[in-house]
Amino acid sequence: MDFFDVISSRRAVNHFDSHRDVPDALLRQVVEMAASTPSSFNLQPWSLMVLREKEEKLRLQKEAMGQAKVSEAPVTLIVLADTRGWADECPFVERNFSEMMKAGAMKESQRGWFSKARTNLYGTSDASQVAFATKNTGFFAMALMLSARSVGLHTHPMDGFSMEGVKKAFHIPDHYWIPLLLSVGYFNDEKELAEPKWRKTYDDIVVRF
Amino acid sequence: MDFFDVISSRRAVNHFDSHRDVPDALLRQVVEMAASTPSSFNLQPWSLMVLREKEEKLRLQKEAMGQAKVSEAPVTLIVLADTRGWADECPFVERNFSEMMKAGAMKESQRGWFSKARTNLYGTSDASQVAFATKNTGFFAMALMLSARSVGLHTHPMDGFSMEGVKKAFHIPDHYWIPLLLSVGYFNDEKELAEPKWRKTYDDIVVRF
Repeated sequence: MDFFDVISSRRAVNHFDSHRDVPDALLRQVVEMAASTPSSFNLQPWSLMVLREKEEKLRLQKEAMGQAKVSEAPVTLIVLADTRGWADECPFVERNFSEMMKAGAMKESQRGWFSKARTNLYGTSDASQVAFATKNTGFFAMALMLSARSVGLHTHPMDGFSMEGVKKAFHIPDHYWIPLLLSVGYFNDEKELAEPKWRKTYDDIVVRF
Repeated sequence: MDFFDVISSRRAVNHFDSHRDVPDALLRQVVEMAASTPSSFNLQPWSLMVLREKEEKLRLQKEAMGQAKVSEAPVTLIVLADTRGWADECPFVERNFSEMMKAGAMKESQRGWFSKARTNLYGTSDASQVAFATKNTGFFAMALMLSARSVGLHTHPMDGFSMEGVKKAFHIPDHYWIPLLLSVGYFNDEKELAEPKWRKTYDDIVVRF
């Protein structure tokens, strides 16, 4: 699909067709397109829990203010942002370093420099750790929404949920922030697709101080 | 351009053609495509400073570890995330409420409920305010990068900079977080476009606990 059609037809849809599944191969295709998302030092601090079973989606719905779309959509994703995804103990940091060495972009002697750079940029406060995790996972989630649209799917990003409740209900370790839940499926064609909501114009967005 | 071509040809390019400008009308088109980005309660807590003048780009470069692309690109954006973009004092919150009333999605009597919901979801800690700002602005920045690519431009997102230094040098109010700088321009065709870096696979990304 043309890029402009993708971005201009994306909506946060409230009505999913519960009878039309999202095949696993299609979900894989969407996630792998979005996996090309850039991130700080290419650290990719995002993960997904994929919920398809009714019981799981209802368990999530209870923590998400009862929003019906959580269980009506064939797939609802818990999008996870690793606030420790920059730190030495994260396995993907080591993976990243060895991939950079393989590509000739980093030398073994730079290991200490790399660790210090990550710590200084992302590890100096709770807020900076959360910013690192949620900014990059925000990139990824947007790429997911657009990639889904490009194969005919629709999505709904939500932040009306209890982060503590969801963590508890799904045994999610404490170092994850949950920036959003994302329902994915086909639009229920019996409903009407909502008109786009108001948006800031270029002149609203561009500022000077 | 086809969506798949856009997302798969996006790179964080290091070499911009300094002789090829990005016309203002094209930048406007890119920003307005990206303005369709969804956000928490449609609050759109993002802003951009658009730097084109050599002096300004060099001033920014000094705060960004001297990275040459900051001034080589015809346009470098300071991407701002409003950590108070959910709060009653933010003018776009009032704008948002009145637009929702206009669309019939909210009633005057819900003003108090809406304020409380925003405060409970986003205002309970420094970390939650920063998460609100950077998650949504992350969505917007990713849409910007892809929209730019869709019209033939390339970008480079950076977080190697001193946030305090940039704020001071450009008189940016304290309630903004700066999740990234984004250089925008045409790729310097005398250089070779780098191969895509490694990425997590679907099986790396999807987790269970």
